[in-house]
Amino acid sequence: MTEHTAFPEATPFPEALEGAFWEYERALMANDLPALDRLFAPGPDTLRGDASGILVGHDAISEFRQGRGGAPARDILHVEVRQVTDDAALVIAITAPRTGGRGQQSQLWRRIDGEWRVTEAHVSLPAPAIDPRVWRVIGSPLVAGSTDGPLVGETIAVKDLFAIEGQRIGAGNPTWLADAPVENATAPAVQHLLDEGASVTGIAQTDEFAYSIAGQNAHYGTPPNPAVIGGLPGGSSSGPASAVALGQASIGLGTDTGGSIRVPASYQGLWGLRTTHGAVPVDGLLPLSPTFDTVGWLTRTSAALKGAAGASLRSHAPAGSHVVAPALLEYAQPDVRAAFLDAVGDDLDTVDLGDIDELLAIFRTVQAAEAWESDGAWVAEHPEALGADVAGRFAAAALVTPEQEAAARADLVHARARLEEALGERVLLLPSASSAAPSALADPAEIEATRQGTMRLTCIAGITGRPALSVPVLSVPQPGALLPAPVGLCLVGPQNSEIALIAMGELLHTRLL
Amino acid sequence: MTEHTAFPEATPFPEALEGAFWEYERALMANDLPALDRLFAPGPDTLRGDASGILVGHDAISEFRQGRGGAPARDILHVEVRQVTDDAALVIAITAPRTGGRGQQSQLWRRIDGEWRVTEAHVSLPAPAIDPRVWRVIGSPLVAGSTDGPLVGETIAVKDLFAIEGQRIGAGNPTWLADAPVENATAPAVQHLLDEGASVTGIAQTDEFAYSIAGQNAHYGTPPNPAVIGGLPGGSSSGPASAVALGQASIGLGTDTGGSIRVPASYQGLWGLRTTHGAVPVDGLLPLSPTFDTVGWLTRTSAALKGAAGASLRSHAPAGSHVVAPALLEYAQPDVRAAFLDAVGDDLDTVDLGDIDELLAIFRTVQAAEAWESDGAWVAEHPEALGADVAGRFAAAALVTPEQEAAARADLVHARARLEEALGERVLLLPSASSAAPSALADPAEIEATRQGTMRLTCIAGITGRPALSVPVLSVPQPGALLPAPVGLCLVGPQNSEIALIAMGELLHTRLL
Repeated sequence: MTEHTAFPEATPFPEALEGAFWEYERALMANDLPALDRLFAPGPDTLRGDASGILVGHDAISEFRQGRGGAPARDILHVEVRQVTDDAALVIAITAPRTGGRGQQSQLWRRIDGEWRVTEAHVSLPAPAIDPRVWRVIGSPLVAGSTDGPLVGETIAVKDLFAIEGQRIGAGNPTWLADAPVENATAPAVQHLLDEGASVTGIAQTDEFAYSIAGQNAHYGTPPNPAVIGGLPGGSSSGPASAVALGQASIGLGTDTGGSIRVPASYQGLWGLRTTHGAVPVDGLLPLSPTFDTVGWLTRTSAALKGAAGASLRSHAPAGSHVVAPALLEYAQPDVRAAFLDAVGDDLDTVDLGDIDELLAIFRTVQAAEAWESDGAWVAEHPEALGADVAGRFAAAALVTPEQEAAARADLVHARARLEEALGERVLLLPSASSAAPSALADPAEIEATRQGTMRLTCIAGITGRPALSVPVLSVPQPGALLPAPVGLCLVGPQNSEIALIAMGELLHTRLL
Repeated sequence: MTEHTAFPEATPFPEALEGAFWEYERALMANDLPALDRLFAPGPDTLRGDASGILVGHDAISEFRQGRGGAPARDILHVEVRQVTDDAALVIAITAPRTGGRGQQSQLWRRIDGEWRVTEAHVSLPAPAIDPRVWRVIGSPLVAGSTDGPLVGETIAVKDLFAIEGQRIGAGNPTWLADAPVENATAPAVQHLLDEGASVTGIAQTDEFAYSIAGQNAHYGTPPNPAVIGGLPGGSSSGPASAVALGQASIGLGTDTGGSIRVPASYQGLWGLRTTHGAVPVDGLLPLSPTFDTVGWLTRTSAALKGAAGASLRSHAPAGSHVVAPALLEYAQPDVRAAFLDAVGDDLDTVDLGDIDELLAIFRTVQAAEAWESDGAWVAEHPEALGADVAGRFAAAALVTPEQEAAARADLVHARARLEEALGERVLLLPSASSAAPSALADPAEIEATRQGTMRLTCIAGITGRPALSVPVLSVPQPGALLPAPVGLCLVGPQNSEIALIAMGELLHTRLL
């Protein structure tokens, strides 16, 4: 660390602050958590902001430090002090991360009970060339779109399951990527957008083989969720979702088998549309479970979503009145259920969808059998290649017997017919996920519990093949943050009703926000 | 813009500050420069920092605003106020750029003569997916290196002139890129680094066809220079240099024909090595002027430079004692000359290199003739494709007659022999460039004047084919900034003396810093 004697020209520190400033720097580099906790002011008003958001309160800041395992090594190039009173000064430092570039740190220090403490801190680090948690390949652009068309100016983050001419499909797994061939054609789902003028910014990360809704990837890391500090991004379309939420693309092209668009949309406050099964071609898409696999999009605005849908969908059906399924709401956490009921009111028609656990069991059995059919041979040949979470899911999938699969397929036909009859032309309203984004550091049991709830909510669209739109209009309190955490309001509509659902979502958005 | 009535829970503003805060926001979105100037505190101590660095003083901040043409559109999502005294408060805002993601703005406001003014501001914006000024394509990594070797962990920014299997060569020009074939082999200069364990992060921008030392590109923009706020990056290896200075890669693989590694190294405070002509193969490299074209590297540390040089160079010659050429120093600006003389002292041996203008004329004529030979046919067929600056250079190159070229080639042989004899085994010390990085907004005539000076300094290595190392040890005052601007100290050594020059540079670095 550069010593403070290197700053002969810097403005003078008020009494004793200089020692506190350098003690903080020493503690930061040593990851001395007790010293850092001591040097940040106690209480609920202390603030610390960086690229991932602003943490509020001494305890939230302390927890963040416990979770990160140390700050990046840096030197201090220069310090400026702006004294406000005898007991308050703003200290601004130019930092030089050891990995290059320059950063800035602004700290308001106040003398509290005779000791100098940081009450507010704002930290900036230089940006990396590429965030490998979000992206695998990026260009400026990677693939140029048509020079005219309604989507000119839109930029696409393509989930790493779609073929792009000249690129490989990575499927979220580096071992798979290493053996993957260079594609000689572009998937129609990508080409539709290119033809209307959007360009491909890059290929974005996915949970391995799309077989998870968490958004964690053991190889590339967890994409950040800018709406929930330290929160899971949701998956498996995690990279496209984070790219769009971060402003790094305007359209995330993803897939949704069991919630892989709706969940990240819900966690990150985005519009997310799962299309009608079969409405967008799956050619050039690595399959997970063809009975349920669908293509869709994540966007920040309904306008971008309408543009993507308009480029790709050929049939347009109307959507009827709203309906809720009270039994489903039992699987949402209390704060989400309350936000949902507050938004939709308690005077909507209700529908009985039968035994939800049974629906999920049918969905899961068919999905698992097909996932093993899609990827089992490769998984068996590469036993060390998968992260533990996805490996466990494939291990369970391998155990589905032909008899179990056949029984589940028969039950699926009946369940689908029953749900179609129950819902008819109506639009089912439900929360897009059972909870707001869990912390990436949460107890795995807690994450699993939210997954169990969420899968029960998302499987209705999977079983019916209906389109489902997540609209960013709900929120729940977010401890340790200045803003609440988003949750999606989901609209499951009749086959091919996507455009009608978006219009309905826009009305809800206007009414509720 | 979101109105402030949206923050019922925010801490209260002190008297009249709320109005000033929202007046600032209005003025920022309207690019109302007089209002912004009024709302920032007058005087030399006012600070404003963002990702490009910290500006110091009201005037520097005002000039920056005049140059940028407006701030990106944004909404304010939340405001926190921390009152320090009746006349001072820190105001922290969560911003939502219209292009997505979230930012933070921290402002210290003080009441000065009864009016609220910003005395310090710190602004963070969300990072883009890719900075197209710096990069054309990036991966995580784009090309993996060998899994073992001395360069494991090093990351390469490859100038967009080198062949990489599966990629195109863009040469800094989108029209060229559109017609470029996909390369089926990787240039040896890239492969040497991959073989020793470095990975390729991406393909970085260049001045068009490498025919400039400014670092501006009419199509992709000007890469940022983190060492000089608003300063030119230097070129033509501008993208690799900025990538390394920003910490986005550890090795910039570039080329140097007339200064294209040494100038960006000097402007950005990097180590930069132009190798002996012919020492690193130019296969797979788009030529500019084969008589002078060389390969080399830009790094933040001498260790990384030694690694890259060690992977690529086969012959190692010693280097002798230091010598200076007083006539050359006349082409450096006074602050650079003073810094140079202060560093090297006034007791070094001197050498007479003859008429420097004549040397430059020889260099330029041969370079221009060869540049036209390399690219003239394409340039003539694509009259609209080039930026004005490079187009002008090619237009001049087209006018070199065969007789002029033949005369210059004959003169080159004599000049080279004369310089070789004058220098012998000795190492010529000189500034790497005639000035620190000029402002990207500077008068073109001023930029041209520095270029004229710099080309006289850099042409000595070009004419002799000698290696030249730029060592980041000099600096000159940088008005409006907290830190001085870097300038390189250049060592031009005997053929194949690269490793000896780096060792010499390390000694100078230790002694002078």
